[in-house]
Amino acid sequence: MGGIHLALHVTARFITLEGGEGVGKSTQLRLLAELLEERGIACVATREPGGSPGAELVRQVLLGGDVDRWSAGPEALLFAAARGDHVEKTIRPAIERGAWVICDRFVDSSRAYQGIAGQLGDDAIMAMHAIGSGGLLPDRTIVLSLSADEARQRARARDADGGDRFEQKDHAYHKAVVDAFESIAAGESNRVRLVDATGDVAKVHRRIVAELADLLP
Amino acid sequence: MGGIHLALHVTARFITLEGGEGVGKSTQLRLLAELLEERGIACVATREPGGSPGAELVRQVLLGGDVDRWSAGPEALLFAAARGDHVEKTIRPAIERGAWVICDRFVDSSRAYQGIAGQLGDDAIMAMHAIGSGGLLPDRTIVLSLSADEARQRARARDADGGDRFEQKDHAYHKAVVDAFESIAAGESNRVRLVDATGDVAKVHRRIVAELADLLP
Repeated sequence: MGGIHLALHVTARFITLEGGEGVGKSTQLRLLAELLEERGIACVATREPGGSPGAELVRQVLLGGDVDRWSAGPEALLFAAARGDHVEKTIRPAIERGAWVICDRFVDSSRAYQGIAGQLGDDAIMAMHAIGSGGLLPDRTIVLSLSADEARQRARARDADGGDRFEQKDHAYHKAVVDAFESIAAGESNRVRLVDATGDVAKVHRRIVAELADLLP
Repeated sequence: MGGIHLALHVTARFITLEGGEGVGKSTQLRLLAELLEERGIACVATREPGGSPGAELVRQVLLGGDVDRWSAGPEALLFAAARGDHVEKTIRPAIERGAWVICDRFVDSSRAYQGIAGQLGDDAIMAMHAIGSGGLLPDRTIVLSLSADEARQRARARDADGGDRFEQKDHAYHKAVVDAFESIAAGESNRVRLVDATGDVAKVHRRIVAELADLLP
């Protein structure tokens, strides 16, 4: 008799990493992708704005130009449009074929940056998310948390050229973003988990994995 | 004693031209701009999507690519974003300095194309318009009306290359757009006026001017 072939059936999950600039999202996304791969879980790693051909075009429109090119309303509409294309062309198809999707930034960034810090209001952001993306929410969202001062130092060390349009906004704005992420996490404590992003990369990675333990096979 | 200088004080007005493809909006916009100029009324003639540097970037994203690149939700979000920039950077400043603004397409196009024909719903379109443009509505909207058959013939005669992404959509969709404009006009009969677009250019121009008579000095 032949051997028994074990097929690993894993529920597809949609995980997002959030937080201000310089908190280490892209590094942690890579480490999380490696972990899933080691465990034999098919995984699509992606990031916003962008992640699909149409959304990448919108990304260029959003991130180029002067710091004040877009006011909060049009900017939030552009993010919601890019996100809708990303969900339709990349995220939903991956989930439907059973893969995990891990994404650097998603709707909680729009809520924190334009909704709360940018004063458009959370209802407006969620209304746009319903129109563009059918209101899709992640199964789990990790908010990497650093004080605004620490995050700014890290971002400066990384971007010798001064950073993109978002990184040039003032300190008060970034402080408001940090506060906004904390308030989102406080309001949706099952989905959204605040993770301390201080300390070395491996330590932060282990903290993230601990917050995903109930979802991992 | 010197002569008396008459300064013409005209209330700034915001006028939009709407209708399906091939109804003659751009020709009629030009004739209307000429009329205002002859009467000494400062006028800004503009068109959507576009009409400001940011909105022109979004226009390129919207009108390029395959006919099905954007689904209705993301597409409507992109239009609302472009419109918000256009209102903020071009339309409101012109009105504030006392000029008339005449615009080829505005929010009623989004209502007809994505809201009604595209089935997103009028409430969703108006919610996005509130976020992007503060809900600004024209003082008068002229809907140029042709049957879908006639409009298609005119558009074909003009665009030997097959037209842009919107002009390639099917006949049922264009019929739905024509019906949608008629229903908007029926619902807001003071602001929105249906004008028969059959017959020669000068005749249609006179019909438009008649519908603006109460606003013209």
